[in-house]
Order: sequence, then structure tokens, then C-alpha cells
Amino acid sequence: MTQEPDHGRRTAAQGSRIDAYIDRYAARATGMVASEIRALFAVASRPEVVSLAGGMPYVTALPLDTVGELVADLVAQRGTVALQYGSGQGDPHLREQICEVMRLEGIDAGPDDVVVTVGSQQALDLITRIFIDPGDVVLAEGPSYVGALGTFAAYQASVVHVPMDDQGLIPESLTETLTALAAAGRRVKFLYTVPTFQNPAGVTLTLERRRQVLEICRRAGVLVVEDNPYGLLGFDGEPMRALRAEDADNVVYLGSFSKTLAPGFRVGWALAPHPIKDKLVLAMESAVLSHSSFTQLAVGRYLETQPWREQIKSFCELYRERRDAQLNALTALMPPGCHWTRPAGGFFVWMTLPEGLDSKALLPRAVAERVAFVPGTGFYADGSGATAMRLSYCYPEPDRIREGVRRLAGVIQQELVMRDTFGTGSMRPGPGVDTPGPDLA
Amino acid sequence: MTQEPDHGRRTAAQGSRIDAYIDRYAARATGMVASEIRALFAVASRPEVVSLAGGMPYVTALPLDTVGELVADLVAQRGTVALQYGSGQGDPHLREQICEVMRLEGIDAGPDDVVVTVGSQQALDLITRIFIDPGDVVLAEGPSYVGALGTFAAYQASVVHVPMDDQGLIPESLTETLTALAAAGRRVKFLYTVPTFQNPAGVTLTLERRRQVLEICRRAGVLVVEDNPYGLLGFDGEPMRALRAEDADNVVYLGSFSKTLAPGFRVGWALAPHPIKDKLVLAMESAVLSHSSFTQLAVGRYLETQPWREQIKSFCELYRERRDAQLNALTALMPPGCHWTRPAGGFFVWMTLPEGLDSKALLPRAVAERVAFVPGTGFYADGSGATAMRLSYCYPEPDRIREGVRRLAGVIQQELVMRDTFGTGSMRPGPGVDTPGPDLA
Repeated sequence: MTQEPDHGRRTAAQGSRIDAYIDRYAARATGMVASEIRALFAVASRPEVVSLAGGMPYVTALPLDTVGELVADLVAQRGTVALQYGSGQGDPHLREQICEVMRLEGIDAGPDDVVVTVGSQQALDLITRIFIDPGDVVLAEGPSYVGALGTFAAYQASVVHVPMDDQGLIPESLTETLTALAAAGRRVKFLYTVPTFQNPAGVTLTLERRRQVLEICRRAGVLVVEDNPYGLLGFDGEPMRALRAEDADNVVYLGSFSKTLAPGFRVGWALAPHPIKDKLVLAMESAVLSHSSFTQLAVGRYLETQPWREQIKSFCELYRERRDAQLNALTALMPPGCHWTRPAGGFFVWMTLPEGLDSKALLPRAVAERVAFVPGTGFYADGSGATAMRLSYCYPEPDRIREGVRRLAGVIQQELVMRDTFGTGSMRPGPGVDTPGPDLA
Repeated sequence: MTQEPDHGRRTAAQGSRIDAYIDRYAARATGMVASEIRALFAVASRPEVVSLAGGMPYVTALPLDTVGELVADLVAQRGTVALQYGSGQGDPHLREQICEVMRLEGIDAGPDDVVVTVGSQQALDLITRIFIDPGDVVLAEGPSYVGALGTFAAYQASVVHVPMDDQGLIPESLTETLTALAAAGRRVKFLYTVPTFQNPAGVTLTLERRRQVLEICRRAGVLVVEDNPYGLLGFDGEPMRALRAEDADNVVYLGSFSKTLAPGFRVGWALAPHPIKDKLVLAMESAVLSHSSFTQLAVGRYLETQPWREQIKSFCELYRERRDAQLNALTALMPPGCHWTRPAGGFFVWMTLPEGLDSKALLPRAVAERVAFVPGTGFYADGSGATAMRLSYCYPEPDRIREGVRRLAGVIQQELVMRDTFGTGSMRPGPGVDTPGPDLA
């Protein structure tokens, strides 16, 4: 990237040449380094750039007046509770409502098994905290959610990817991976999976494969951590049955209101078997004492007084239109050799570039042309993904999506000319986990 | 405790006889066990019990109507920001306002060095996460904040207590402890201290000792983590200068709006030297992505539009009245041989019982007599504190405080009779860290 213009200011982490505390950090902190692409995303958030990078939901579609009234009523009527400390496990009434939400995905659970967390990100952090010793193996789809890889790295887990195809995680590959790890004497703690409208790949695990994956993990004594923020954001028919609906003993389910309502409340949850739930509550208390009573009660009141199912439907229609805009633009504009997934819900398309192109090397040029994406290497712990990228369609409006794809197609075209003129490989930076900013989740 | 009536239902943790996942947890999770006194506190929250146990601020004193209007305005005017993901470091404007708050304690700092966290508890969790390898030593006052001990245990730190007297941490003892640890080849990462209106002891480190403690730590290469939730809640004169005001390079300062505004927003912060701040932001992102934009902006708007300094003053008056009620009742009612501290601010009195009495053994009897406290052992990682207890005066109204002290004095009187009749020791349970519930913080 040395020949590229300097688009962004350097992050503070890069700017501090001397860290006087360097010898004092814990071993786990040595991996906490700001991504080299982080500064670029600061530029990418400028209004003239079409960002196909972010995973931000389109909260503008919410009825803001209603939400405003609702929080004012909350303070007036239950202010002394909303402003006070709450319990570590979370508000009991909200936990009941969460069970009602999960019922849409076939889950039968009681509020005592739910722990409310600061987004499902914290649920993932706490699950990792209670299960992972340094060096323990976590299995994850390849590619996998960048925020999960950051959390696993923070606990010094060893992430092993299991490949996917258009039907999601490949059961045969899962078996092979487990066999190889067992032969190597490695301890596998859990499979982390986003089975429905996967982030970043946009694919969904089929019903048939769900049964197989659950069976394989149960036999191997490997817990399944099902992360399902997008499950209710499908574009066709009824919600998919969750993995947790088929196996209450070996699945920890992570849910979130960030996409079905709004991320600004930071309300997510974990549903876990009793003993794991007990540990999660204790871990929650040592991490933050308790979540915000205010935001928990606000979400509870929203669910109680507003037509939340209809709001989710209207989100689905909005995102479907954007997905269509993106897929149609990709079909119309991308040069031959590009391939992409066709999500039936959620926020993301995964695109693979023609041979010899490197998405990370492409990013500064794309930003110069006022379009941004997340390079594929961010979604792998092992340096894979160089030829791929994640394209989101959740936040920009359809016209902007089309314009973004047009700009990106132009950059890729140029890059193909470069490749054909100068050959491949020279622009490729080294592999590495890219710590995400929150807006890239 | 076998002769006591069964006041509480058993916690779920105690109720689950078989934990099928027991062989899979991380080493750090083995210490995450619900305290044996936890169930008792469920009983202690009944209205007929005067709880001198909790650390809950008296949020009833807040102008709830005003807060309600303020959050409604926030959603109406800045809803799409308040409901969206924020940055990992926290809202920039709130960070500026936090610097203004800290200026009251003599701290000169810029917003770029502040990280907004989910209460200062999370700041403590993240600091521990980036500095502590299993077995590393954390120095803490004896007694120390129970929630901090829980966090240190979760990261497998080895806590070594340094004694206090009425003037706070004893510098000579700090030096001796450091010398002994150095001789033993132990690695001391930081001193955790609540220098002002300490939780649980209610004492304040004098100005003279502040300089000494900072000097000793700087020479030893030991970072100081200054936890200061009560600093602005003094009953006499101007706020004390923070440790951070004297040493910007070797002090990480933790602050909170939980006591000066309300805990229900869960807004706290860390102020740290640049390189540490950078690590904290990355740790924050892997832990929760970002804090709630909604609650951050609500706190920001409160500070911007409301007379927050006057609100703090009115809190101070309210708590001073309660402190006086408690101290006067203790003087009037406690039997000879009881000793207690005289806090000049904050929420807590630390009382030492006559020789031969055990506060944990006393607790079930006290709860039966409708008064609750936190036994002293909860505030030590090493089993000390059996003859002491923490008495809070922050939440009950003065009449209730007097009644609570009256009941407690009766229980202690009875216990003294028992001691003089049957001798000491028989009722003493084993030592151990008691994981706190959030309301005991």
C-alpha cells in the first residue's frame, strides 16, 4: 500500500511510537492492535463515500416520535426502577418478552434461562470468557463474523475455520476438521455459527444440514454457539427454525434487538442451559455489574406497546429492496470472473474477485473512488479471504447502492487491466486479523 | 448456620446438582461460584427488612419529570444517532463533558484520553483484561471493593491486601508489601485503590499520603488504578484532588455517573495514558462493540441542560443527613467493643465487632430480625474481615437507618451473651470471596 495516497490520518495506536507500558500488558493484550485498514474507514464514513462496508441497520425507518413518547412515559411511570441498578441476569419481564420473540423461530424456553447482555457481542464475550483457556480451539465458519474473531483473539482462542458453500457450513468438512483436531490432540470447546443469513457470507444453513451439524457436534462433545441477529430479517416466508429449537442441551443461542429494533439500546441476550446460564450471570456481574435498567425497560415497553412484528416486516421489505438493488447492479456491472452469494435475508453479500486480485490492496483505490467495502481477510483468523470482500446493503438507499456498485465495478475493471499488464501479487499485504470498528460489525 | 430457619430459596447455582458442562469450562470459570450469602440477600430486599447492605444511590431524589422530557427531546432531535451504533471509545461530546466533571477534582485531561464504559465496573474489567496474566499480583486496600475482587478473580489475579487506617492506605505498609513481593519474585501489575470515601471502609487517603503512595508506586513501576465513584459526594468543603491530578503518566482514573446522576444509564469511564487508552478501546470493542449511544447522549444532555452541580450538592446534603443518623445511632446503641469509621463522604461505614464475634455467622440472625449488612469477608480476597461488616447509609431514610441500627445492636447484644456463655468460634464458616450481586456494589 506504500504507493497509495495517504487517505486517512493514522490512528492513535499507530501514531504513538513509544508505549512505555509495553512490558506490563497481559499476554492476551499483545494481539490487541488496531487494524491497518481502520484509518481508511474513518475516511469511508464521509458523506461522499458510498459505504458498502458498514453493518448499521437503517434506524431512520423507526417511528421516532413514538419511541420518544415511550421513553418519556417510562421515566415518568417507572423512573426510580429505570434509573437504578438492575439484576445481573436482566429485567425479568424483558426476559419473558425475549422468550416470546424466540418462539417465532421455534424455540421453547423460559425466562430463567435467558441472560440480558450489552448487545449479543457481550454474550459472545462472556461465553468465550467462561469456556476458553488460551489455545483452546473454536470452530467457526470460513468466513466468520469479524467481531467474533476479535473476541476469540482477546481470549487467545485458536480459531479453526470450516468451509461453507451456498447451503452454509459443510457437514462433511466439519467432521473432517473434528477428526483432524482430535488426532492432533486439540481441545475443541465450541462451534461458533451464524446459521441464518450469515455475516459475512449471506448464506443460510439448510434444514437438512442443521440436523447433521447438531448431531456431529453432540457426538463430538462440542457445544454449539448459535449467533442469530438476522434470523427474523428473512425476505421469503416464515422464519427459519433455530438450531436451538432442535437441541436445548447443546446449543447456546445468542439474540439481539440491534437489527429488529435499534442497536443504540445495546440490548442482546444469551439463552443457555441452566448451569451455563448461572456462570454467565456471574461473569456478567464481574464484567459490568448489570446492564442498563433504562434501556432494558425501554425495549420492554416498546415490545409491549408497539406493533413490533409489523415493524420487523417493514424492515424486511426495506432490506429486500436494497438486496435486490445490489444483486441487480452486481449482475449488470461486475466484470466476468466476479462471483457473489444471493442472500435470502440479512445485510450482506459476499463477493469473490477474479483470480489475482486482492481485496485489501483494492480498498484504498476504492475509497479514492468514493466506495468502501470490507476486505475478506477480516473475516478469517488465518489470513484467507484475500480474493473476497463483504458488500453490505443495509444502510445506503437503493440508488446509492447502485452507484456504489458502479464505482466498485470501475475499480475492479482498472485492477484487472493492471493485473493483465503487470501480473499478480505485488500489491498483496500480509495476512492478519483486522480488529473491527463497531460500525463494521 | 444450620440452626437458622431457611429464609431464602436456594440459588439456581446451588440447586443444579449436576453440571454436565463442568469439564469444559475455562480455568478462570472455576472460581465463578455463587456466594453462599447470595440467597440471604434475596430475603434482605423484602420491604420489612432495613437493608444497610446495598450500595444503591437514592435516585428518588432526581427530578424525574425533567429527565423524562430530556430523553423524549433526545429521541425527537437526535434519534437516528441515539438509536444507532456508536464508536468504541464513546461519544466525543460526552467525553468532553467528562473532562469538565473531572476538572472539579483538579484533573487536567482531554477527551481523546477518555473511554466511556458500561459503568466504571467495565472500565475495571477492561483494565484487568489488558494487564493481568493469571498469577499476576494486584495490590488492593484491605478491605477493598467487593466488585473489584470479583473482577480480579475472574482474570485469575492474585490479590494482596495493603492495610489501611483512618487516613487510608498506609504508605509504610505499601512499601513493605512491595519489598516482600519483589523478594518473592512476584510480578505486581497495579495498585487498585478507592482513595476517597472508600468502599467499604469509608476512609479517605490524606493529601500527604497521596504524594507518598504515588511516589512509591512510580518508583516500583506499579501502575495506580484510581477508582473514584464517590469523590464528588463529600460532606465538607471542596472535592479532594484526585491522584490522577498529580500524576498523569502512572494513574488510570475510573469515574462514574452512577452516584452523581443515576446507575440505570450504566455510564462510567476510564481516563488513561494514550497507549493504555488505545488498548482499552480495542478491548471495549471486542467486549461489547460500543456502549449504548442512547444512554451516553442522555447523560450528555442532562449535563448540558440541567444544573448538575446543584443536583450533586443536594445529593451530598441528603447523604450527610443519613450518615449523621447512622453515626449517632451507632454511638447511642452499639455495645462496648464495637468500633466504626466516620466517613466524610460517600455511602459506607465500616464497623468492627467485639472480639469473638463473626459477622457472617451473624447475618442470618440479623436478617431474621429484619436488618441486613454485608459481612467483612466479602471485601477481602484472603479470608480476612470476619469480625467486620459494611453498613451503608445511602438508600434507607434516616428513621429507617436508626431502626436498622437498633435491630442490629440487639442482635450483637444477643451474640455477646452467646459468646460469654458458650465461647467463640463454633459458628464461624470458612473464608472465601463472596461474589456480589449488583445491588451490593
